Amino acid sequence: MIRSFQELTRHLNHISTRRRLAVANAVDEHTLDAVLMAVKAGLVEACLIGDVAVIEASQHLFDDDSIMPYLHVTDIPDIQSATTEAVRMVKQGEADILMKGLVNTDVILRAILDKQNGLLPPGQVLTYNAALDIPAYGKLVFFSDPAVIPSPTLEQRTAMIKYAIRTAGKFGVEKPKVALIHATEKANPKIHYMQDYLDIMDRWRMGEFGDVIMDGPIDIFLALDRERGSIKNVPTPVLGDADILIFPNFESANAFYKGLMIFGGAEMGGILQGTEKPVVMTSRSESIRSKFYSIAIACIEAQN
Amino acid sequence: MIRSFQELTRHLNHISTRRRLAVANAVDEHTLDAVLMAVKAGLVEACLIGDVAVIEASQHLFDDDSIMPYLHVTDIPDIQSATTEAVRMVKQGEADILMKGLVNTDVILRAILDKQNGLLPPGQVLTYNAALDIPAYGKLVFFSDPAVIPSPTLEQRTAMIKYAIRTAGKFGVEKPKVALIHATEKANPKIHYMQDYLDIMDRWRMGEFGDVIMDGPIDIFLALDRERGSIKNVPTPVLGDADILIFPNFESANAFYKGLMIFGGAEMGGILQGTEKPVVMTSRSESIRSKFYSIAIACIEAQN
Repeated sequence: MIRSFQELTRHLNHISTRRRLAVANAVDEHTLDAVLMAVKAGLVEACLIGDVAVIEASQHLFDDDSIMPYLHVTDIPDIQSATTEAVRMVKQGEADILMKGLVNTDVILRAILDKQNGLLPPGQVLTYNAALDIPAYGKLVFFSDPAVIPSPTLEQRTAMIKYAIRTAGKFGVEKPKVALIHATEKANPKIHYMQDYLDIMDRWRMGEFGDVIMDGPIDIFLALDRERGSIKNVPTPVLGDADILIFPNFESANAFYKGLMIFGGAEMGGILQGTEKPVVMTSRSESIRSKFYSIAIACIEAQN
Repeated sequence: MIRSFQELTRHLNHISTRRRLAVANAVDEHTLDAVLMAVKAGLVEACLIGDVAVIEASQHLFDDDSIMPYLHVTDIPDIQSATTEAVRMVKQGEADILMKGLVNTDVILRAILDKQNGLLPPGQVLTYNAALDIPAYGKLVFFSDPAVIPSPTLEQRTAMIKYAIRTAGKFGVEKPKVALIHATEKANPKIHYMQDYLDIMDRWRMGEFGDVIMDGPIDIFLALDRERGSIKNVPTPVLGDADILIFPNFESANAFYKGLMIFGGAEMGGILQGTEKPVVMTSRSESIRSKFYSIAIACIEAQN
């Protein structure tokens, strides 16, 4: 079981299978630095697509001959065309992972969602699945969705849970503990997603989600803190040991992880899910390390 | 300006005006311990209402003669009647603060909301206003609403903001910085509360909220982290220095503060607002310290 981003990096370095990464408009320093870290760590072989003059002006990129075999540059200065080419490479099996560089989210999403040439199979739900490394927690927490689906429908939430369970499995988590997060453990029928939670719990009991432990609604104390959870005196098999947090809406997932990055020393990485191949779509404000961890998660996802 | 719960306690001890606290069904150890702390710290004079046999069986309560003048017991074993009596005392000016002991939230809320004998004036919005002491932040953050209003209307949100500004003022915060929290700084019109945010921003510009700084939608990074916020390159006068966080819904406020209590060493205290007098309504699972800080916040609120 991979319990931290450090263990993840070590594991990927150890298996020494470089995944092929196609980076759309790889012209900003943050993206280039993160890709370079991943190449140096032995995680990926990267194809940088964008304006070659800008890419090659990057100071640190070409100062290490040993990594040159794993860095390729395709000169497509137009952002839209660079994005289309990156998606094409992944679609046609020339790359294993798509990564967004300096491209507006709208532009790359449109390319991913394109019916003809995109990466989302019919009927799949596009969502964001992230992992949080909170030093004091002792293992990774997978959570969804802090960025893409504001208020998931039952179908979307069901997909989110299944993706997260599959990802946890790839990290070696056996029988993951899934928490359906709410402000309390009380199933207030006035809350619009509560019926969905109860429905999901029913289907979990009937085996739809496989060999996992699930409980909800429960709050963050019950999900992540054995001591505070115990005081509540609410019996839950998740008690303070959740592997997966399914948040009711994207605002709660977002505020939760950002608070812990600022004040809990947490690191975050995440990928788009639902697509044929993993997509690394970090935002400008994310640190180089966050982007690097996202690439690492995509590498694990790219395993069969 | 009071920048931490420690400073708050010191300040209240210094001004040495004991507020009168009426505690409904004060029979559980957590409540009694918190009240005792507040009495010992010179914050309150307490009237404990409940089953006198149970109250007096509490070990630590009567071991210190010096505090005896500030502890009164009213023997009303029936929970409902004890609650009604506590509310009556506050209503009729015999107490300054109402506190919930071992009473179901429904029961005390019904007493507070009673049209005839309750504590909520017509037209007032009942909401929960809390303060978070995050050691690494360097000052208190006021936030609303993690517990009472799941998804505020425009009217409710406006009231929440005004209460929070008033509370911050009582803590000596001049020109507080108010952040309307969202997952990003982009005002996506598909998000149901976005029009309310824009409307509130308009009314702020026209001076409705007084001498405060306000911005929204912004995310937690822009609100609380100067460094990460700066990377985003979004101009905001709040940048990393928010005093007040208005969350879009109660799930996001709830997940945010609970995560920081577990992993960020944060302490929380809060009170009900909208009522004639401050109401301390902590839940069973809250620590004695949290309950104590809530009493302290109520003492500040009780000032004119």
